[in-house]
Amino acid sequence: MITSISNPKIKNVTQLLTGARQRREQQLYVIEGVKMFQEAPASQIRQVFLTQEGYEKVRKIRPEIASLVTDGMMQNLRGPVCELVSDEVFGRMSDTKTPQGVLCVMSMPQWSVSSILEDADRLLILVLEGIQDPGNLGTMIRSAEAAGADFLLADMKTADLYSPKVIRSTMGAIFRVPVIYTDHLVRSLQRLKSYGVHLCAAHLKGRQSLFDADFEEKCAFLIGNEGNGLSDEVTRLAESLIKIPMEGAVESLNASVAASLLLYEWKRKVDISSRF
Amino acid sequence: MITSISNPKIKNVTQLLTGARQRREQQLYVIEGVKMFQEAPASQIRQVFLTQEGYEKVRKIRPEIASLVTDGMMQNLRGPVCELVSDEVFGRMSDTKTPQGVLCVMSMPQWSVSSILEDADRLLILVLEGIQDPGNLGTMIRSAEAAGADFLLADMKTADLYSPKVIRSTMGAIFRVPVIYTDHLVRSLQRLKSYGVHLCAAHLKGRQSLFDADFEEKCAFLIGNEGNGLSDEVTRLAESLIKIPMEGAVESLNASVAASLLLYEWKRKVDISSRF
Repeated sequence: MITSISNPKIKNVTQLLTGARQRREQQLYVIEGVKMFQEAPASQIRQVFLTQEGYEKVRKIRPEIASLVTDGMMQNLRGPVCELVSDEVFGRMSDTKTPQGVLCVMSMPQWSVSSILEDADRLLILVLEGIQDPGNLGTMIRSAEAAGADFLLADMKTADLYSPKVIRSTMGAIFRVPVIYTDHLVRSLQRLKSYGVHLCAAHLKGRQSLFDADFEEKCAFLIGNEGNGLSDEVTRLAESLIKIPMEGAVESLNASVAASLLLYEWKRKVDISSRF
Repeated sequence: MITSISNPKIKNVTQLLTGARQRREQQLYVIEGVKMFQEAPASQIRQVFLTQEGYEKVRKIRPEIASLVTDGMMQNLRGPVCELVSDEVFGRMSDTKTPQGVLCVMSMPQWSVSSILEDADRLLILVLEGIQDPGNLGTMIRSAEAAGADFLLADMKTADLYSPKVIRSTMGAIFRVPVIYTDHLVRSLQRLKSYGVHLCAAHLKGRQSLFDADFEEKCAFLIGNEGNGLSDEVTRLAESLIKIPMEGAVESLNASVAASLLLYEWKRKVDISSRF
């Protein structure tokens, strides 16, 4: 059992939790909690850290992984490393207020969207420009999966996908929905267009109401920064500007709410209606 | 100019920012930032604290209040107290990472919904049971205003309306949409029913799809705790259980996203459609 926070493995977990650069360099990130552990793809799990209590919890859920803990010497060299940690050490490395005693170091998945783009008759894509709030980003990934989106595309000003708060907010969708970061959003959007994807921007100056809008089968919804919306450069690329009707003195909706309303509107009009 | 954080007024602001009990006892709360100041109802502003830079910002926006700063001795006794504060003191009392130099102590509004309930031909109400996340609560208030909701009803397990994070997330909607806390949610829901309000619960076991559901003109949407959903007791009171269709392995949507989808579905089917 690891009982010292100066253990190099524990130190590295702390660095991975706090530093985007460390995550990028090592291509690793950290997940916490029973639910996330339950949904984590086995092929991506590199290290598992458990308190005694955490071990009892996960033993029933994923016995094949928990069993690695029983004898450190007997660990499968190609499988994940699985170690017990004292409550105190776990409390120090955890990012949450009430740690559940389960933490994994994961390798980042490498998504490729080329085949998705080439093969699809229908595409639902969410495009993010400068989304700052980690909770918003995580919530959008969760909604995107629920609405059946194929992937998300984000510019480099968007919050880091692998920060603990984003991961938590996805509620596991991070394992299942590809999120692609691009260092040239305009070029990536032009590439989407070349695949026949229609670009729809949520925009306060939109003339078409969400309720009246018709959507193409291949559609990407563009959502801009919480404070400033989409840049002019990106807005100009959009083929339609959609306005979500609002009462009262509200100037805009929360970005993840706006994204979800758009995604579900597509789901209603394109996806569901075609099933009958 | 106030230059000491041991000034009693400054101490009280800090207490109001951090303590729900202090807020309740004094019936006061704190707002921060230029945008919130801009939207704050004049009748509720009790104290205004500005840095020199903050003063320059608000001078153009609300000259009638900013002018109170120019001579402390000449302040209108019945109007708000308005004081300059050093940058250091402001930084210490601010709840934000990058303070804008504008902070107000506000009196809590006293909402009465009896007249709303009695006079309305149509009612849109959002009911919250045990919503824990301040960001979710604030976002729901914002969406509720945008969808044209009459008020929100929340049980005592729901997060405190006047915590700084909730206030920020409302983006000003907190000033305009009544939020009523009840210490007996079941009784309050029965009262709503007696006014002809139809109770619709967002529920994972719902049989009716969001897209297919028809809504009554007087409708309250019930949203439960982020982790556990609605209690059985409250669910039993609902006349219909609505399921939001979901793809993938997502178990549920973010609570504020679910609430927004329901509110906007009502807006689409009841409010907008009746305008033609």
